[in-house]
Amino acid sequence: MAAWPAVPLLINLGGSLLGFAATLTLIPAFKDRFLAARLYGEDLNKASRRPVPEAQGVISGAVFLIILFCFIPVPFLRCFMEKQCAAFPHDEFVELIGSLLAICCMIFLGFADDVLNLRWRHKLLLPTMASLPLLMVYFTSFGNTTIVVPKPFRVLLGMHLDLGDYRDDHIFSLYFMIPFFFTTLGLFYHNWYPSQVFVGDTFCYFAGMTFAVVGILGHFSKTMLLFFIPQVLNFLYSLPQLFHVIPCPRHRLPRLNPSTGKLEMSYSKFKTKSLSAMGTNILKAVKILHIVDVRSGTDEDGEYTECNNMTLINFVIKLIGPTHERSLTLLLLLIQVLGSTIAFSIRYQLVRLFYDV
Amino acid sequence: MAAWPAVPLLINLGGSLLGFAATLTLIPAFKDRFLAARLYGEDLNKASRRPVPEAQGVISGAVFLIILFCFIPVPFLRCFMEKQCAAFPHDEFVELIGSLLAICCMIFLGFADDVLNLRWRHKLLLPTMASLPLLMVYFTSFGNTTIVVPKPFRVLLGMHLDLGDYRDDHIFSLYFMIPFFFTTLGLFYHNWYPSQVFVGDTFCYFAGMTFAVVGILGHFSKTMLLFFIPQVLNFLYSLPQLFHVIPCPRHRLPRLNPSTGKLEMSYSKFKTKSLSAMGTNILKAVKILHIVDVRSGTDEDGEYTECNNMTLINFVIKLIGPTHERSLTLLLLLIQVLGSTIAFSIRYQLVRLFYDV
Repeated sequence: MAAWPAVPLLINLGGSLLGFAATLTLIPAFKDRFLAARLYGEDLNKASRRPVPEAQGVISGAVFLIILFCFIPVPFLRCFMEKQCAAFPHDEFVELIGSLLAICCMIFLGFADDVLNLRWRHKLLLPTMASLPLLMVYFTSFGNTTIVVPKPFRVLLGMHLDLGDYRDDHIFSLYFMIPFFFTTLGLFYHNWYPSQVFVGDTFCYFAGMTFAVVGILGHFSKTMLLFFIPQVLNFLYSLPQLFHVIPCPRHRLPRLNPSTGKLEMSYSKFKTKSLSAMGTNILKAVKILHIVDVRSGTDEDGEYTECNNMTLINFVIKLIGPTHERSLTLLLLLIQVLGSTIAFSIRYQLVRLFYDV
Repeated sequence: MAAWPAVPLLINLGGSLLGFAATLTLIPAFKDRFLAARLYGEDLNKASRRPVPEAQGVISGAVFLIILFCFIPVPFLRCFMEKQCAAFPHDEFVELIGSLLAICCMIFLGFADDVLNLRWRHKLLLPTMASLPLLMVYFTSFGNTTIVVPKPFRVLLGMHLDLGDYRDDHIFSLYFMIPFFFTTLGLFYHNWYPSQVFVGDTFCYFAGMTFAVVGILGHFSKTMLLFFIPQVLNFLYSLPQLFHVIPCPRHRLPRLNPSTGKLEMSYSKFKTKSLSAMGTNILKAVKILHIVDVRSGTDEDGEYTECNNMTLINFVIKLIGPTHERSLTLLLLLIQVLGSTIAFSIRYQLVRLFYDV
């Protein structure tokens, strides 16, 4: 692909812009079909309870697939037209096809989850299955790339072991990231406050697998993880509730206070006695550290304890107090930007400690 | 793959038997989720109107995908374990992955159709897109196979042009057909008269693409078409209604006569004047040929014409008279078996006229 990467990238960009327009127009066009199929939810953060179409990631995902299906031959056209290839690069081709298989499978699975409300065991089993082809593609293309040896080990191992072509890897990533960005932008337009549509599990599965594909086959999975600092913090903060050491309600998003129009922390309320010893200790610790708001009291059923649901969103509200949804959304996006800035500085500054770049 | 095809095939068979058990148990297990998601229909050929889960092809399809995802490395294990490959056979690998991509995409699309009731333009557009990766895989593997030259041209072209390895092609087909057979058998068990479940568009799309993949990449697409003689006849018979030259109702399946418990032909009824000149001529022709039952009369709205809906099923009832659903189902299966027998005899007998086999 190294010979003339600009042309495929421009074609990819052109297709992606069409995809942006398609997503933008298809989402309202399909609204009635989603409502008729009862694929809708209520916006819990609004006073009005109008139905909002769900699972709209299936539209941006389908457009993404169409763009990339049409794009498949493009990076290889030089082999057909100009006979510039000694042999057809089946290994590059299989990376593209294998990635699309993993992503297509996850969109399908996400949509099935939105429609059928799958159980946790299926949610865990099926993505594992969907990543098997990716794993296999990774193994078979493994021979083509190796690692740069960190400084302390160079005496032993030398400077690097067959660097591979990192430029190709980044071009490969762009083939996926450009259409992903533009189709998601179309979805974002409709999902922006106040949401006309919800993205659904479909989008989460789709986005997750797309990032995984790009990170793994682009050989920068560790760098990629750096861009998920807010998500990782959210995961760590959520652990007590995810493992049900602290009771976890079905929805943990903030609670709208209809009288102020602002969002407040949502709480998990339970009988103090029902909590395990481990749960009690964890609550004590987080209360001392001031990272969770814990209250106790007595009502008609006896002693109760309540603590805010352990999500990053509630934590932000804990820090700044009740906030309007629009400001909170902007603030959370800002946190993501901040996280990505930190990621870039770690990747391009701290890395100097270990590598000459 | 030619070296030890028996071992991968046995593993494939083992996985498929597990898949049969999985499909058999998962379909009843998921029943409530499909009902809750309102994915059900009524059996129009039964007196009782209980809800029957729809779109169950999504279960057999998902099991099929899981079997094949787990199977992906198997044909290539010899390359990893025994180092029997000079280079990794990326071209064979991409055939497997590309086929799975096309099939996965069609299961997803079929399920989306069942849930959202897509329009005809989407039904035509998206399968075309889904077959693009397959087309690309076909082109890139095209160099590996060529044709046997028919007798009259051998003076010019010689006996054959690089035969390719047909044995590999058939093994490739079996990798898909064995799991397809067993997962479909599990679905068939529940779909057998009286249907506990319906297969939905999902299964039709899934089955169609699986046959297409096997026929195209196995290089016997023309032979495969021979096995669809009943479907081709049904299509030709349906043409006047498909192009709306004769009015076409939403459902064309036979009509239950509740007093006899037997199925009778269903009719399309319309005002005689509303028919185009072309439609009138076609109706005259099929009436003379006795292949469609045409009746005319007068009711409160004036002159009307009605003709039986042009499907193979109605045609069979026209030949043998009102029939019980169970007998009709068996008869139609028998017609399929007969069609396949004719297909085999054409393939292996008539072919002698053109080739030495």
